[in-house]
Amino acid sequence: MRYELYYWPSIQGRGEFVRLALEDTSADYVDVARKPKAMPAMMRLMESRSIERPPFAPPFLKAGKLIIAQTANILFYLGPRLGLAPKSEPVRLWAHQLQLTIADWLAEAHDTHHPIAGSLYYEDQKKEARRRAADFTAERMPKYFGYFERILERNSKASDYLLGKKVSYVDLSLFQMIEGLRYAFPRAMARLEPKHRKLIALHDRVAGRPRLAAYLSSPRRIPFNREGIFRHYPELDE
Amino acid sequence: MRYELYYWPSIQGRGEFVRLALEDTSADYVDVARKPKAMPAMMRLMESRSIERPPFAPPFLKAGKLIIAQTANILFYLGPRLGLAPKSEPVRLWAHQLQLTIADWLAEAHDTHHPIAGSLYYEDQKKEARRRAADFTAERMPKYFGYFERILERNSKASDYLLGKKVSYVDLSLFQMIEGLRYAFPRAMARLEPKHRKLIALHDRVAGRPRLAAYLSSPRRIPFNREGIFRHYPELDE
Repeated sequence: MRYELYYWPSIQGRGEFVRLALEDTSADYVDVARKPKAMPAMMRLMESRSIERPPFAPPFLKAGKLIIAQTANILFYLGPRLGLAPKSEPVRLWAHQLQLTIADWLAEAHDTHHPIAGSLYYEDQKKEARRRAADFTAERMPKYFGYFERILERNSKASDYLLGKKVSYVDLSLFQMIEGLRYAFPRAMARLEPKHRKLIALHDRVAGRPRLAAYLSSPRRIPFNREGIFRHYPELDE
Repeated sequence: MRYELYYWPSIQGRGEFVRLALEDTSADYVDVARKPKAMPAMMRLMESRSIERPPFAPPFLKAGKLIIAQTANILFYLGPRLGLAPKSEPVRLWAHQLQLTIADWLAEAHDTHHPIAGSLYYEDQKKEARRRAADFTAERMPKYFGYFERILERNSKASDYLLGKKVSYVDLSLFQMIEGLRYAFPRAMARLEPKHRKLIALHDRVAGRPRLAAYLSSPRRIPFNREGIFRHYPELDE
């Protein structure tokens, strides 16, 4: 099956969580954003009257006749097919539960620079962003870090990776969260990392996976920038 | 199977989306929040070292040995078991995708009164709340309403309910969104409702389901209040 991934062309954003799964498994996929005239094609597809199950927003995945949206839902679908999740229902639900918690965390990371409205510029909500980012770095980041560290400590099955000896899409997503937070909040991360060694070890294990490492150092990996979900504004990281 | 639903005792919140599914199907369930000493029991369970797969936050469902968290994940699990979702994978994924879009919408509704931090009082972020709520009612609510209305218009299968002739947990959740938004933003809703007749008709169809109607008029239905996710502050609805 050749998958087609639809997403915005100039940011990692939510699409990157899907991309990492496809890249780590050398899946056969078309990254539609990289094609010429990708955006008109994506918008046409989203607005087409002939699509009975339209996505609310990118990213979405075309898999044969299926069009699947919502990042965590795409990964739930791809997981067992790419060998990035076990097939047993309890473990699939658990992996998905973790992924949805990461999705919440990611939405909060986004709202640090856009606490008022996605449709306004950062500059128009800078004061509010400072307040929200202060809470995010002081309260929310430690809470999420503590949660995932606790899982790695308590879960006897979580030896190398979150679900056991085999990597799953959740590990790849946690890696991406840590990468993004390092870019956006280097000072907050310098405080948190030493206290969450298992999580950082997991990040490093993922980073060292050969296909993933090759992808990350390739031009296909869009650099973090101030258009994406993770943004570095020094005034938000104090 | 007797399910156990764990959630906060004094608000509808996210737990209500699960409760509606259990109530509409007369499922055998214990609403743990209604029991004496429910909160210590819930906190103990969440923090217990013997739980290998701890939830990040309520609600969560105990189903035999399984503990499942994240509202949309719980409904994904319960859906086919309660007859509130078809068993076919493409339709289950589609229902889940819609549910995740509702979850995003709900998080945005919450953030209208807490745009800065969940840990602060509303009074400490009132000014920011006014700005965020203005965007939510003017931009986001119409976008979500338009999306769901379009699905009801375009999808030839969406006759009585979103997925076809049979009700699904997504219909129950959409009903709940509309109820909550009517409570929180009556003025914005008065503008939007006449333009989204199919969605309102769906809401009314759900409200008229005998078991659900019985539940809604029972003392088990916690009234909306200013502790919940949907809150009515007139200054946020102008």
